[in-house]
Amino acid sequence: MELESYIVGFTDGEGCFSVSFSKRNKMKMGIEVRPSFSVSQHLRNKKILRRFRRFFKCGSIRFSRRDQTYKYEVRSTSELVDKVIPHFKKYPLQTSKAQSFRKLCEICRIIQQGNHLSPKGMKKVILLSEEVNKTGLKKYDRKKLLKLIAR
Amino acid sequence: MELESYIVGFTDGEGCFSVSFSKRNKMKMGIEVRPSFSVSQHLRNKKILRRFRRFFKCGSIRFSRRDQTYKYEVRSTSELVDKVIPHFKKYPLQTSKAQSFRKLCEICRIIQQGNHLSPKGMKKVILLSEEVNKTGLKKYDRKKLLKLIAR
Repeated sequence: MELESYIVGFTDGEGCFSVSFSKRNKMKMGIEVRPSFSVSQHLRNKKILRRFRRFFKCGSIRFSRRDQTYKYEVRSTSELVDKVIPHFKKYPLQTSKAQSFRKLCEICRIIQQGNHLSPKGMKKVILLSEEVNKTGLKKYDRKKLLKLIAR
Repeated sequence: MELESYIVGFTDGEGCFSVSFSKRNKMKMGIEVRPSFSVSQHLRNKKILRRFRRFFKCGSIRFSRRDQTYKYEVRSTSELVDKVIPHFKKYPLQTSKAQSFRKLCEICRIIQQGNHLSPKGMKKVILLSEEVNKTGLKKYDRKKLLKLIAR
């Protein structure tokens, strides 16, 4: 079996690209943006999550109380950029997750260039994030976020 | 990308091996057993289901009203045996679905040999099916099924 392609298939089936926001009064824009890549599985399949961690040489596995599953997660922008994104550029996703992935790439680029530290850049991140998180923003909606950066 | 490995990854993430039973008074054992392999996706990813159909050269895609998703499904035992099972024997599943798959193979063998037409064989199929359908039998539980074949 070719692990590179297996990883893409598994991700198309069960992986998740997402962007979350937290209110952080001490940060320049008042909010922190965190892009991430994750794969969740029941305890019985924790082994495959370790395989992901070994494969990407980054990320961590934690128990998600909310979903009662284990979650492999890469939350560091530089690790996303250096280790995760190149793989999915070389071996493209075949489902609608390819679109989420592309938007996540754009967000990571904005963050790496420091453009999320201006209202204009952060606004772009917020709008792009709605296309990454197809099921909607979790904690804050667009309106709340835009209000926070407009203070 | 290597499609063979991609298919295994996607199946480990999102595929499903299952066995369903229907009451059929006219059949020898009074029940019909139907093993199947399926993959479900939202409408936006119907394309990948067609890819599965082309890859396995069998099966069909239908809309599942219950889950509001599209489902690629192989329900013919001979197609499972000739087309689906050989692939996953050559490229093994890496999660707990490998166990479901192995039990499904045993059930298909029993059916192909016609042994499910005896109470002893059908009982074995019923017990094995509990290990295929990890979330439990759907319509009939073990007790009901065993009662039906004991008439």
